[in-house]
This record gives sequence, structure tokens and C-alpha cells, in this order.
Amino acid sequence: MAKATADRLFINAHLATMAPGDEPFGAIDADALAVTGDKISWIGLAGNGAPEAGDIIDLEGRWITPGLIDCHTHLVYAGNRAREFDMSLNGATYEEIAAKGGGILSTVKATREASESDLAAESQVRLEAMMAAGVTTVEIKSGYGLDLENEVKMLEAAKHLGEINPVRVVKTFLGAHALPPEFAGDSDGYMAKVIHEMLPTIHALGLVDAVDAFCEKIAFSEEQVRQLFKAADKLNIPIKLHAEQLSNQHGAELAAHFRALSADHLEYLDERGVKEMAKAGTVAVILPGAFYYLRETQKPPIQLFRDHGVPMALATDCNPGSSPTTNPQLMMNMAAVLFRMTPEETLAGFTRNAAAALGLSRTLGTLETGKQADLAIWDIEHPSELTQAIGSNPLYSRYYGGLQ
Amino acid sequence: MAKATADRLFINAHLATMAPGDEPFGAIDADALAVTGDKISWIGLAGNGAPEAGDIIDLEGRWITPGLIDCHTHLVYAGNRAREFDMSLNGATYEEIAAKGGGILSTVKATREASESDLAAESQVRLEAMMAAGVTTVEIKSGYGLDLENEVKMLEAAKHLGEINPVRVVKTFLGAHALPPEFAGDSDGYMAKVIHEMLPTIHALGLVDAVDAFCEKIAFSEEQVRQLFKAADKLNIPIKLHAEQLSNQHGAELAAHFRALSADHLEYLDERGVKEMAKAGTVAVILPGAFYYLRETQKPPIQLFRDHGVPMALATDCNPGSSPTTNPQLMMNMAAVLFRMTPEETLAGFTRNAAAALGLSRTLGTLETGKQADLAIWDIEHPSELTQAIGSNPLYSRYYGGLQ
Ligand SMILES: [Zn+2]
Ligand SMILES: [Zn+2]
Repeated sequence: MAKATADRLFINAHLATMAPGDEPFGAIDADALAVTGDKISWIGLAGNGAPEAGDIIDLEGRWITPGLIDCHTHLVYAGNRAREFDMSLNGATYEEIAAKGGGILSTVKATREASESDLAAESQVRLEAMMAAGVTTVEIKSGYGLDLENEVKMLEAAKHLGEINPVRVVKTFLGAHALPPEFAGDSDGYMAKVIHEMLPTIHALGLVDAVDAFCEKIAFSEEQVRQLFKAADKLNIPIKLHAEQLSNQHGAELAAHFRALSADHLEYLDERGVKEMAKAGTVAVILPGAFYYLRETQKPPIQLFRDHGVPMALATDCNPGSSPTTNPQLMMNMAAVLFRMTPEETLAGFTRNAAAALGLSRTLGTLETGKQADLAIWDIEHPSELTQAIGSNPLYSRYYGGLQ
Repeated sequence: MAKATADRLFINAHLATMAPGDEPFGAIDADALAVTGDKISWIGLAGNGAPEAGDIIDLEGRWITPGLIDCHTHLVYAGNRAREFDMSLNGATYEEIAAKGGGILSTVKATREASESDLAAESQVRLEAMMAAGVTTVEIKSGYGLDLENEVKMLEAAKHLGEINPVRVVKTFLGAHALPPEFAGDSDGYMAKVIHEMLPTIHALGLVDAVDAFCEKIAFSEEQVRQLFKAADKLNIPIKLHAEQLSNQHGAELAAHFRALSADHLEYLDERGVKEMAKAGTVAVILPGAFYYLRETQKPPIQLFRDHGVPMALATDCNPGSSPTTNPQLMMNMAAVLFRMTPEETLAGFTRNAAAALGLSRTLGTLETGKQADLAIWDIEHPSELTQAIGSNPLYSRYYGGLQ
């Protein structure tokens, strides 16, 4: 029998497969990984049946993890909100900042005014920072356009970024992010437009991998979100939700009722909501960046998620107003320091459970034969170092679909 | 009259000079900066008397700030403490971790066991991360050797790093960092050794730019530190102090009495101590990384420092146990988010006031004619972006002594 062949063989590696099992970090007894095409084709001990490969890469003891997956971002936007931050720290009141055009509507204005190519170019800088941190898949939400034309523009920019970079972009329609100025005082009217005009049109353009909304007192009500989810469900579009960030609106329970992929933020979630998420298999996406930046004190119910077996993902929530970061390792550190998640949980949060939060568990999130060869290779002695260091980046190299 | 010449002229720049004055960030009406040799030789409007230069660099609107100065680090050490962090988050008690050799003494053990060249090589990785973040001067403390041979080894490694990299290394002798195991129960005996053997010997080797100590219940008493400072004072060595981090030991007041360059941490400092620092011109070095990582709740008295005119510096406190970071921008963000320092204060903390904390105000810390041409050039539209983004690094290029 001819010996099996592969395109590429990594040897002298440590593998944090992140596959479920008893070994911390899924660190199995293997020191080699083979790639054929864009897939992982073999994992094992190099001396024990490794395939032949034209390209053999000696990792000299470095660690391979699955490529990082950032499952909740608002990465596509124009402008920044640093001046507003500056004003606030120099004592300006909320009203003074609003009067100078601050807040989310300043990002809406800048995003509406930007061309699609300017929008993509500004966002490219952030995407490059994420890729340099080991990210191979990123979810990007719309939600700063808030009308048909500009929501399409944002999602087209997101799609374009995925086409020109070695990274997978998952596009989420978040028309129900905030109330645009032209609908001030008429959130029902705006939600009707989202449901009847924007969602079906943008879906028909092939730009919607999932639907999301912001369920909160300052945004949209549980009842409004329910109508949106019914419409998404009819179109067979997966569902996500910004829920229980600032108060308990029972949004996560609603999301679970629609078998949502994920409910995100969740600081104010109660045990009943946790149980509903567990039953539905809805992933809890924890966003420590916004918690930190907004100086919140109510922490998400990490122990309840553990007790009820709700998978926890982590994400940067990259956005200009409440989580201006492109740094997944820092989010891992913050999840550990602020929420007491373990290093293994934080890495699962950017790999296995992040894949689940995007409905991509079948192909992404662990190092297993048959899965996509999206790999992050690290200059570390143990994977817990990724979480302990405060926002360090020991990435050595990165493979997307088997290619560097 | 022949036109003045310079080696290098930066044009189309924004300048955050950080020089004292009314303009935020010292952003004066100038768009060009000239370098001659290793000094800034001219600042002004390019169209208004700029010197001729062989090398003209068009910055296309980017910002120049002084190169960053990290004025408090323990950057030279061996090993890391990620496993200890992992154990603790997985529920291990302090005793269990200590039994497995955790804590500061594990770093002492690893540092003692490392050769000088291994120590320098491990530390080089951290120094490169800092340089990539725009750092041109870094203070490095000893304090993991805790005997003559190993304290010398650490400071020699620090000196070596400054010789092989485009960065200025300031060496601080911190023999009084912790009690070494061979002096358990005899802190007076160890302090006597520090004062009578280690300090004079290491000073004679030319390895001591400043003396520091850790004044705290769990370390050395005010009285012990006073004896050390007396000895340092006789040798004319500048003084710094880890003070009031975990409790009020009146260490900052003691430091001020010796006209210390800085007192560092200061969470538990009271107004009397602030006033003494103001009188002595002692800089307050704020260390948000350790505050964050140790989940402290008592914040340093920022408003009192402002009220009494005590200059505030910031630093990474880079160390393996309580501030495992090499990221100055993240410290600027944490100082703003956690302590409500303004973006301008946070940048002054890594430039003008950090220079003062090292006694180098005459040559470093601001963009002014005659000062060292240590420059950080940033891809930003406004300097407040450096602080608002959570640990981003928009460094475009970096000059040390006029050279890239
Ligand atoms: Zn979000
Ligand atoms: Zn320190």
C-alpha cells in the first residue's frame, strides 16, 4: 500500500485541538498535523503513520490552535469616537457631547456619508489588526446604516473585505441596532421597515448570514424583536440577539424560543434565561470589552452557564463607541481577570464555541480531521499564556484554508 | 546668510509636542520638525524658515509625539507565571499554588537559574514588543536576583539590551523587592546586606541609575527603607519607591523627604502624602496594569495629584506576576477608563512626566529644540485616539536618536 500523502505537514508541534474531551485545551498526544487542500487531513504522532508531504514545517515545539473566530463585531464603520471620549474625560456632560453630534448617531452619520470603498478601506485597518492577532473568521454586523441603501453598503463592504483578505467574513444584518433620526419617536414604524423592506431585500441580495437586534429599553422591545424574529424564521435565517446588556428584558429567552445561534452580552440574564438557552443550544457570547469600557459592574452569570451547560463564546464586539478594540487576546485576558473564566474557557470562547455561535461547528473551531485548515501558531510554552498576558500577541504564523 | 541645514526634515506633520502650555497635547502651530545628529534642531511651519535637509519625509498629516518612555518595568526576568494564573482560575488556593512553587519566588528561582544571555534573550521578546509600541526609553529594575551575583546579572542583562537595541535603558537597583528564601524571617539581615554589600558593589560597577524598594507590610518597612535611602543618598543615587500599593505605609512621604524622583503605585496615598510629593517635586507613577490584574478597588488619588500639581507618569509595570503586559497604549486606556485620567494626561504620563520620573526632563519627554530626537509617528487623526482605543497600536514609524 502506497503511503498517504498530504500537501503540508507540521511537525514538532504541540496541539491545543480544543476538541471536547478530558484533556485541558484538547491537548492530545500528537505532535504533527497534516493539511491537504484546505482541510486538516491527519493528526497524530509524526513517527506513527504520518503522511508524506512536499512541505514539512518544523514548529520547534510551538503550539497550534484553531484559527481564532471573532463571532461578534461591528468592524465596518466610518470615523471614530475618540474626541467624544476626550470630551467626556474632560468633564463634558452627555448633553454637551450629544449637542456636538456624539453618540451612535455620529457613527451612523459618518458611515452614511462614506463611500463603500472608503468604508472598506477604514475597516481594512481593523481587520488587519485582527488577522495579525490570529483571527481567521470574523462576524461583521451592519447597523450603522439604518436604511436600506446604507445597510446594503455596510454588508457589501464586509463581503468585499472577506473577498480581498485571507479571512472568512460572516455577515449579520443588524438593521434593528438603533433608531435612525428620521424615525425618531416611531420605533414601530422603523421596525416595520426593517421587517418588510430591509430584511427581505437584503436577504435576496445574499448578504444575510444571520439576523441580529438590540433588545433593550434604549433600543427595541421584546415584542418588536419577536416580530423581526418571526420574519427571519420564515426566511430560514439564523438568529442572534444583543440581550440583557443593561437590564433584563428577557431577550435571551425570546432568542432561545427561536433556537437562536447565540444571545450576546447577557450581564443581566437570570437563571430562567440560562435554562432556556441551555435547552435551545443557544451559545452565550460574552463581551468583556464593552463591560470594561462602559465601567459596568453587573457581571454575566458565568457559573450558571457552566452549571447548565451553556457554551460560552467570547468576542471583541469591535465598535467605535463601547468596545473600541481589535484584540482577541485582550478579551481573553479580560474574561479571565474580570469574569474569572479559565484560560481554557477563554480559548474555547474564540474557537470551538465561537464556531457554534456562528453555526459553523461542523467545519470550524477545533483541530480535527476533515475540518478547515484554519490554524494559529503561537510562540508559547503553554496555551494559558495567551490568556495570562494582558493583550500580548505571540502569534508566530497563521494559515487560512491551509495557506499562509 | 546661508540657509540652515539639517539631516532630516519631517513635513506635513501634526506635532503633539507635550511641552507645557495652553494647547492640548502641546499641539502648536507647526507642521515640520528637523533633526540634526541625534537632536531636534528646528520646529516650525515648513514654509517659514525650515532648514534644508538631505532627507525630507512627508508624513501626510500623521502625528509626531515624543518617543514613549516606560518609566517603571521589571522587564528582565525568566519564566512566566501563566500556569499559576491557570491554577488559580481553576480554583487552586493560594497555599496550593505556593506549594507548587508559585508566587514571586518562582520568578526568583527561574531568574537565578538562567544565564545572563538566556535572561537577555527572554527579555528581548518583551523589549521588542515595547519598541514596536513606540517606546524609545525604558526603565528596567532588578529585584528577582536578591543576591549580589544575580542582581548584577539582571542589571548586566538590562544594560546589554540597551546596547544591542535602539532604545535607552535606565537601570534601577531593586534589591529590596522581596525577601529571598535564604533570609526568611530576617528582613533586617537582608536589608543590611542590601545596604552594605549589594548597593555599594553594584553601584561601583556602574549599574545603578536609581535605587528603588518595595515599602509594604508584605515587603520592607518604612524604617528599613529609610536606612536604604540614607545609604543611596550618601552615594548620590536618585531614589524611587513602590509605595502605598496595598496599604498606607507613608512611604511616599518618606520618598519625598529624600526628594525622590518618583513614588509609584500610590493607591492608598493620603492628601498629606500628596502634599509632601508636591513640595519635593516627586512624580506620581500610576500603574493601572497591576490595579486591573490584581482586581484592586482602591484607586490612586488622581484629583489630589491634579489639585496639588503633582506630575503624573504612567508605566506598564511589566512583570510576570501582577502586570504581565508590554503595552503602553493599553495602560493609557486603562488609566482613562479606570482612573478617569484625560487622554492628554495619559500621553503626558508616557512622555513628559515619565521623563521627569527618570530625572531625564532636560533631554527627553517633549518635542523641543535641543532635545533628543526620539520620535513616535502615528497613523491617527488626533492624539486622543491613542488612549481611546483599547490597546491598539497605530505606530507608523519610530526614531531613536534621530535614526529609524
Ligand atoms: Zn454588539
Ligand atoms: Zn514595580
